[in-house]
Amino acid sequence: MNDQFRSPAADTLHAARLDRLAEIAVRVGLGLKAGQEVVITAPIEALPLVRRITEHAYKAGSSLVTTLFSDEESTLLRFQHAKDDTFDNATGWLYDGMAAAYKSGAARLAIVGDDPSLLAKQDTDKVSRANRARSKAYRPALDLIVGFDINWTIVSAATPAWAKAVFPEVSEAVAVAKLWDAIFAASRADLDDPIGAWNTHNANLHARTKLLNAKSYATLHFRGPGTDLRVGLADDHEWNGGSSRAKNGVVCNANIPTEEVFTTPHKDRVDGFVRSTKPLSYQGTLIQDIEVKFENGRIVESRARTGEAVLNKVLETDEGSRRLGEVALVPNSSPISQSGLLFLNTLFDENASSHIALGQAYSKCIRNGGSMSEQELAAKGANTSLIHIDWMIGSSEVDVDGVTAEGEAEPLMRRGEWVTQ
Amino acid sequence: MNDQFRSPAADTLHAARLDRLAEIAVRVGLGLKAGQEVVITAPIEALPLVRRITEHAYKAGSSLVTTLFSDEESTLLRFQHAKDDTFDNATGWLYDGMAAAYKSGAARLAIVGDDPSLLAKQDTDKVSRANRARSKAYRPALDLIVGFDINWTIVSAATPAWAKAVFPEVSEAVAVAKLWDAIFAASRADLDDPIGAWNTHNANLHARTKLLNAKSYATLHFRGPGTDLRVGLADDHEWNGGSSRAKNGVVCNANIPTEEVFTTPHKDRVDGFVRSTKPLSYQGTLIQDIEVKFENGRIVESRARTGEAVLNKVLETDEGSRRLGEVALVPNSSPISQSGLLFLNTLFDENASSHIALGQAYSKCIRNGGSMSEQELAAKGANTSLIHIDWMIGSSEVDVDGVTAEGEAEPLMRRGEWVTQ
Repeated sequence: MNDQFRSPAADTLHAARLDRLAEIAVRVGLGLKAGQEVVITAPIEALPLVRRITEHAYKAGSSLVTTLFSDEESTLLRFQHAKDDTFDNATGWLYDGMAAAYKSGAARLAIVGDDPSLLAKQDTDKVSRANRARSKAYRPALDLIVGFDINWTIVSAATPAWAKAVFPEVSEAVAVAKLWDAIFAASRADLDDPIGAWNTHNANLHARTKLLNAKSYATLHFRGPGTDLRVGLADDHEWNGGSSRAKNGVVCNANIPTEEVFTTPHKDRVDGFVRSTKPLSYQGTLIQDIEVKFENGRIVESRARTGEAVLNKVLETDEGSRRLGEVALVPNSSPISQSGLLFLNTLFDENASSHIALGQAYSKCIRNGGSMSEQELAAKGANTSLIHIDWMIGSSEVDVDGVTAEGEAEPLMRRGEWVTQ
Repeated sequence: MNDQFRSPAADTLHAARLDRLAEIAVRVGLGLKAGQEVVITAPIEALPLVRRITEHAYKAGSSLVTTLFSDEESTLLRFQHAKDDTFDNATGWLYDGMAAAYKSGAARLAIVGDDPSLLAKQDTDKVSRANRARSKAYRPALDLIVGFDINWTIVSAATPAWAKAVFPEVSEAVAVAKLWDAIFAASRADLDDPIGAWNTHNANLHARTKLLNAKSYATLHFRGPGTDLRVGLADDHEWNGGSSRAKNGVVCNANIPTEEVFTTPHKDRVDGFVRSTKPLSYQGTLIQDIEVKFENGRIVESRARTGEAVLNKVLETDEGSRRLGEVALVPNSSPISQSGLLFLNTLFDENASSHIALGQAYSKCIRNGGSMSEQELAAKGANTSLIHIDWMIGSSEVDVDGVTAEGEAEPLMRRGEWVTQ
């Protein structure tokens, strides 16, 4: 195989799919409303996708599209050359600006393609301090996102560093092409009628959440190798999945791709132990084989084969960082899981596997949660934190039961698959 | 000549000079203070220079370096695809964020490399509305820049579109290489001791401003083909040139390169007619052969061979856009002028020629102006506007006299050169 150049036919196909992914991002992901401003965040390598999205957004009537590009090399230069006393700084002025844009009606479109190991060799203390400062400064904008005040979406782009991490055995050019193909397939951008396919997919996910909401289980019970975990669900929890309506009235798909149904655990009612089933790529650090023990909702023991220091620093972020803010169910037969790829990227790996998230809960996963105060949400069991970090605990070896308020266990998943289709 | 690849030796030389330009930008341009945040704006094609500057800034002790990249193709997509009723929008939230950064101590570093004809084929009305909305939204940040509340600098990068406009007869790769060489030469990045060379250059410019300040002329009189213009100077005007101290105490060179000495005209005391001597590239429109007539400081007639519609829209921006905010003297023997190149970029072309600027005056060109109110500055004759647009009126055919308060004319420049060296 020629490493350096695709054939003209392959180039044409790639361009068509890239354009289709952009259309999905604008129409399915954001559900963009005419007259709405769009704020895009993107790695600089995603420029061709940014341009396709920009065009589709303007064609859909966007009032203004602005992209904030990030450059991982510049981030690395900071850790290599900045003075030690500077790592508690963050660009609060920029995050405040983004929050102001959202408040005045802008939609948020994030393109991700992080190098999973960017900061692997950098000083853990500096990395943790920088992450913490960033989380704190980003909070006002994040609140509007996790609270679904606005329509938003995350899509991905195959950057060279990410592609080489997923496909280390081939050249960079081949790896990028392979990763793009995997992204197109997972995002349904390889289909002739991607918008129709997304409508069907959303309907399926809505049917699943309807079933689970009717059951209103008190607890989910996960069992598998290294895992025996009871995740109590928040009072008045609601299951979500697929498209949903933000508070600004716009229906959006917050993740492209998405295969999960998810809800809010009770912050004080998680007990037992759990082992991660896929590596977690967190801010440039790869955290593998996490094992933690919960008591009354709180992580009381934690270890990891790699990245343990970063994991433990993350858990120290605040009171809520040791508790769960999300639990999600994904069948092992999901297309992303069946691709057999480890994407080293949460957007994909969380959609290949059931998972839990440390930190902040989504208010929309509590009935009427969108109009509740933080105190009211906490009373229902919803967790609060500067962080929200998903990690994967499902596999073909994991069973899940739904346990009713009366203590009756009903099989939900067996060997990673839904018992009821 | 091989169009596509430079030799390895040329690559090494280019990399060394790029790094030297970055060092000049940080040490001479910003005069960066340890602990200071840096906000960079840059075209996406300037990424290699951004990375070099980022490293030098961190090495100099910067607390955080953030780059806001712009993409001209995305700008063009707006004019091609956005709905007509959206062109009065601007990213106020982003400019407000930048202003907040400057207020909290950040330095500002702009990298420019605009395509001079980006918007040449776009609808003039849309372009003007977008420019006006941008100028208005940018005002809070611009005030801190033109008022020298902070240290700032502008440097340039050879982008493909700009390079092809300057060197249309060669391939893009050759054009980019030639433009980089011209930038390195004009910015003194091709010298072995660029910092020392800048110190000498700044001393020369300071000596010239000292002479002119001692003279304290009432009026400058420009004469040449199509030009007979009397530019009254503001009361208590001060000449500036080369490095200067911002209000935050940091000594910076606001333009790299810079060859000009400049001061504030009196907004009501400009009379006569003037013809531009070089094309003006303004927000993607090339405005050529401008001819205007002034009465009592105000432009009462205006025409241009190309871009006249954009020029006239600019003049309608506000009351101050028809009046002058700056007058600058540059000898025709300046290195940039002697390169014989038309850069189609104000940063270079204004340093090849004496020039005037429509719009906003610099308060630092009035004695103690930095601590005066807008009313006090206006009483001295300083102009106010949303715009500040330099255009070139000097050449080897233009003479300049300094006229004293008593009406006595003294020759300042003859055939474009200083009479007193």
